[in-house]
Amino acid sequence: MKKVILLRHGESEWNRENRFTGWTDVDLSAKGVEEARKAGRLLKEQGFKFDMTYTSYLKRAIKTANTVLEEMDMLWLPVERTWRLNEKHYGMLQGLNKAETAAKYGDEQVKIWRRSYDIAPNPQDASSSESTWNDPKYANVPRENLPLTESLKDTVARAVPYWKGTIVPALASHSEILISAHGNSLRAIIKYLKGISDSDIISLNLPTAVPYLFVFDNNMNLIKDEFLGDPEEIKALMDAVANQGKAK
Amino acid sequence: MKKVILLRHGESEWNRENRFTGWTDVDLSAKGVEEARKAGRLLKEQGFKFDMTYTSYLKRAIKTANTVLEEMDMLWLPVERTWRLNEKHYGMLQGLNKAETAAKYGDEQVKIWRRSYDIAPNPQDASSSESTWNDPKYANVPRENLPLTESLKDTVARAVPYWKGTIVPALASHSEILISAHGNSLRAIIKYLKGISDSDIISLNLPTAVPYLFVFDNNMNLIKDEFLGDPEEIKALMDAVANQGKAK
Repeated sequence: MKKVILLRHGESEWNRENRFTGWTDVDLSAKGVEEARKAGRLLKEQGFKFDMTYTSYLKRAIKTANTVLEEMDMLWLPVERTWRLNEKHYGMLQGLNKAETAAKYGDEQVKIWRRSYDIAPNPQDASSSESTWNDPKYANVPRENLPLTESLKDTVARAVPYWKGTIVPALASHSEILISAHGNSLRAIIKYLKGISDSDIISLNLPTAVPYLFVFDNNMNLIKDEFLGDPEEIKALMDAVANQGKAK
Repeated sequence: MKKVILLRHGESEWNRENRFTGWTDVDLSAKGVEEARKAGRLLKEQGFKFDMTYTSYLKRAIKTANTVLEEMDMLWLPVERTWRLNEKHYGMLQGLNKAETAAKYGDEQVKIWRRSYDIAPNPQDASSSESTWNDPKYANVPRENLPLTESLKDTVARAVPYWKGTIVPALASHSEILISAHGNSLRAIIKYLKGISDSDIISLNLPTAVPYLFVFDNNMNLIKDEFLGDPEEIKALMDAVANQGKAK
């Protein structure tokens, strides 16, 4: 038996301000830190003993992992960070307030940008100071791999190879793995693991900092998947995410 | 040119209580966190751009590194943890108050235990719950490598191979490395780098969370080494460490 916890980071400053974040490296809010602590306590209570941690290059996922591991007294755990687990790149929308964008373009266009499978927002200007190409943390990533915008399909195309090429091989020698990442990079992996269609994936909403357990047999057949914690609380959190793109 | 920062962790709870810590996994004190933040700000001001971080398996070194990197906005940096950078193992002395031990055995015996080159305290009982052999974080380390006590000579014998076998090869492709570790594992490496004698090493005292810069040419010849920060403040901190073993 192999267990993988997929964990969306706790609330970030921009989740709270309802802005498109993507690859912008914003911090956790105070509430987000508390959510991560709570996730760590829950995982400890349920007896998880991870062998390995994976995170993105973005601090909201890294600090969520650090906070969870600190609560579990497992800060010593090995960790690998990868841009392939980063959030979907939102191109020119990064930094814009979601409600303002919805008021300007309409709820439907925003929903398409946030949730359609293969339509990407307009790309960043590669020469701008905010461009991914000019961010020193990606200096060692080949430029042809570095997006300036992405559809969810694009996110799948760079996250799933990491699952197959790095995490599955690691599960040969590890039995419990923690992946602390983002709403859309995790949706990309979940789509692959559960065979969710391009149209159905749009309605899957991941709550922040709720551990999502995937259990596999030793041949990596999926046996079950479930969110850990109080079901009513989880449903309320998922509804809140679904409503984020609506105009206010 | 290659730059390596050796950083002793910030003040821990047991530094403050004046107890032998060794491999006991105690947390930073609030002052220790603040010291780490200050080190991070200093390294940022001086323009350091690390390529890689190394820490021990102990949370006081890990949290010091995380805090420094957060201040530098470099939490995404790759990190490798190793038991080989852990503090010297203090065997049966771990957990004892230094001043109490000094009052019982005398300043000289305590100084020998803390600072002699090749005399190790009595070992831990391997079967006790506090024993390193029963600590899950070392489950993947071969037992013949796992100490139950150590002299500084023993610490040199496991830390210097890590310097030679892992850090020096990493410097072939990296130009700036951060090592967040402990008073004695860093003394072990400094002894090797500067060719300090077995008797002189006893009087080298490393202050907590003061970045110690080593600069090498591309053939790894040592060009210079210096503590970063205010010289008077550093001297006061070093004197405080030297006085820790005295009876109160």
